[in-house]
Amino acid sequence: MASTNPARGMRDFLPSDVRKREYVIGIIKEVYESYGFEPLETPAVENLDTLMGKYGEEGNQLIFKILKRGEKLDLENAGKESDLSDLALRYDLTVPLARVVAHHRNDLPKFFKRYQIQPVWRADRPARGRFREFYQCDVDAIGSASVAVEAEQIMAVSEILKSLGFDNFQVRLNHRKILADILDTAGVVPQKHGDALVAIDKLDKIGPEGVSKELEARGISGDAAEMLLGIFAETQKIIDDRDKSEDVNRTIVSNLINIVDNDVLTDIGNILRFCEGFPVQLDLSLARGLSYYTGAIFELTVPDLAGSLGGGGRYDGLIGMFGKEQIPACGFSLGLERILVVMEERGMFPPEIAESTPADIMVTIWNEDAAAESLKLARELRQQGLRVTLYPDPDKLGKQMKYADQIKVPFVCVLGETEIADGTVTVKNMTSGEQTSMHRSAAAEFIMNASNQQ
Amino acid sequence: MASTNPARGMRDFLPSDVRKREYVIGIIKEVYESYGFEPLETPAVENLDTLMGKYGEEGNQLIFKILKRGEKLDLENAGKESDLSDLALRYDLTVPLARVVAHHRNDLPKFFKRYQIQPVWRADRPARGRFREFYQCDVDAIGSASVAVEAEQIMAVSEILKSLGFDNFQVRLNHRKILADILDTAGVVPQKHGDALVAIDKLDKIGPEGVSKELEARGISGDAAEMLLGIFAETQKIIDDRDKSEDVNRTIVSNLINIVDNDVLTDIGNILRFCEGFPVQLDLSLARGLSYYTGAIFELTVPDLAGSLGGGGRYDGLIGMFGKEQIPACGFSLGLERILVVMEERGMFPPEIAESTPADIMVTIWNEDAAAESLKLARELRQQGLRVTLYPDPDKLGKQMKYADQIKVPFVCVLGETEIADGTVTVKNMTSGEQTSMHRSAAAEFIMNASNQQ
Repeated sequence: MASTNPARGMRDFLPSDVRKREYVIGIIKEVYESYGFEPLETPAVENLDTLMGKYGEEGNQLIFKILKRGEKLDLENAGKESDLSDLALRYDLTVPLARVVAHHRNDLPKFFKRYQIQPVWRADRPARGRFREFYQCDVDAIGSASVAVEAEQIMAVSEILKSLGFDNFQVRLNHRKILADILDTAGVVPQKHGDALVAIDKLDKIGPEGVSKELEARGISGDAAEMLLGIFAETQKIIDDRDKSEDVNRTIVSNLINIVDNDVLTDIGNILRFCEGFPVQLDLSLARGLSYYTGAIFELTVPDLAGSLGGGGRYDGLIGMFGKEQIPACGFSLGLERILVVMEERGMFPPEIAESTPADIMVTIWNEDAAAESLKLARELRQQGLRVTLYPDPDKLGKQMKYADQIKVPFVCVLGETEIADGTVTVKNMTSGEQTSMHRSAAAEFIMNASNQQ
Repeated sequence: MASTNPARGMRDFLPSDVRKREYVIGIIKEVYESYGFEPLETPAVENLDTLMGKYGEEGNQLIFKILKRGEKLDLENAGKESDLSDLALRYDLTVPLARVVAHHRNDLPKFFKRYQIQPVWRADRPARGRFREFYQCDVDAIGSASVAVEAEQIMAVSEILKSLGFDNFQVRLNHRKILADILDTAGVVPQKHGDALVAIDKLDKIGPEGVSKELEARGISGDAAEMLLGIFAETQKIIDDRDKSEDVNRTIVSNLINIVDNDVLTDIGNILRFCEGFPVQLDLSLARGLSYYTGAIFELTVPDLAGSLGGGGRYDGLIGMFGKEQIPACGFSLGLERILVVMEERGMFPPEIAESTPADIMVTIWNEDAAAESLKLARELRQQGLRVTLYPDPDKLGKQMKYADQIKVPFVCVLGETEIADGTVTVKNMTSGEQTSMHRSAAAEFIMNASNQQ
């Protein structure tokens, strides 16, 4: 007999899970649409060529590859994986977007704002909170280098979190060129910038000493490491020591005037100004793992949670990998699973989602002969806007009631022989136990009124 | 440079496509929920073992298989595909449901009604209207043998089509046991029933002569074939010759009394009685390809369209393949892609879907200095419930207007230096060309009123 487990790292979502997921997705969509972002969907399966080489060496390893189809596999002459596979599962939503933008350049407006909420797959080792299939909720704006784009994405993401009930989140902001200028200042040669960023990105996790060791291991001099960590420590001190009246971000920016290119500081200043009233915090040690970022980078954090709920940044070079043109782009990706975990732990779902029921009312079946009448009653109640489930068998009434209790419907409509003869129904309130007899045509309104009072 | 095409048989869905798809999916969900069906989602990737052997020999071939992960592939000793793959892409929504029901037996109510709307993948040869990734919209009821289940599914599917604007569809109904009894009567031995069903299923496509040939090729005697086709021809004559007052289904049922088991005729009679007022037509030659059906089978057709928009039936044996218990089940699967093709061809989408826009209004940016003010205005308008997109760059106004025209926003808000100084905005109606100046706080209401009038 086949196992009934889902595949390793994959999950089944039962109705209460799906309702919570759809609630969060619904809010994300609504806010993104209010900012003029349009929906896009791409296939789960991409040509392997499209994905290879876009996610770094580690990424290449984690791409799920699909066996070649439509011909007999030449197993004898297969010397490497690429002999066996030319398709792969979507790994993120950014690379498919870049492909779509290059492919549909003439069908899309020159400035294209899209959101995309779809699963991605990674052949990662499953762990607590890490799955092989998970949803990303991405928003990207293609075709403008203006930092108004960054500002609107920060605002949109902030509004999503507010609408979901988060009241204490932060958008951490940095800029790849700030990092580059700081690295230059510290004396890190350009070829070592990538290495340095990987190490710096771990400051939150492994602390200054850990980063110092990793920088050394990656061949960056002790002097440079000390200077770098000094700059980050100084910034952190400014944040920690702030008094309420102080604009900490402005203080940090002014400290950078002699180190960082002026245009970059203007951009950062504009983002901060545009996002006034939103919880944006400059964080010079924010590096973001992916190599394709070229400008502003951001990350969304909530207190008491390691890691982030999402992040993004400007990537002006990626689309050029698929087309003749370089097209500026900026995006933000929210991780649905992390948001759901935090909301579950903190009890943040509204009651109608957390305690949802399959129907507003269940209709019973008295006996074989009365079944047609019960089906008819169910239809009548639906036509008046109720969600109605029908108990399918003429079982004993006690058994039918027990089932109603189990699936947590708030009301049951009993249609016995007397009721059918009289044109009435008996409505049982499953919370209070109260039973009320009424004319059939009055039942829907009675239930709607009673539901509103509960 | 990598190709920008989606993989063979796969499709990108641009915003106007996604909106149409979501409109249809939204109606399907709403109707299913009004019947008390609950949402379920299963992973795209299943263990290969879960899927193999469930879809017949042809099905096994069409399953997309995924390369083994987490170990070095032993290419030298790989003698067959199963040495290389232990995962596969979801092929339908019924087998994963059977797995979930067996796995979560204790978490689910004994009578479980679920809907599931997700993509499936088949390594089929792509053709016009046939894709390698497509959506199925399934509804299934698990745990009851009552034909009230069949009746409710026929009603739900009919209501979906009505809500989508189809006014001339038919649910064709048959029963596997009617077919079996007819085959017995015609003298087809039980071992040949499967072969006979495959041939009969093609009656619509290849006609009686084609079926006769195929029956012969499959080793069924000419006498049996003649008798079978005679029964189908007779039924068709009853349908073709009907007068309005006649209940054709009842006539067909009475003709079966001496051939078909009485309990089966009672079941069919009950389904027809429960579905009174719905367009159900008995069709004795309806066979349905899949081998797992055990009782009633149905198919949804519209005039002038070859093939069906969906179908289903009772399958009381499938879940037992995954668990200790045999659990009765019945389901209906709607094909989203076919519904969309027909609706597109027949212009059935409501105007707000067919001519949707990314936003209700676009806000312009006058110059660098005025950008912050435009962002602020966009926020104000959003807070009043409008979908607002911001033109991101301080380009010439003509260029900004041209873009607004291209993305078809109905209104543009111009915020120039004068307007900022005066606390006003100029709202341009992109349809009439009319420009109106007003106080900033009045803009949202003005646009909403004007939108309602258009």
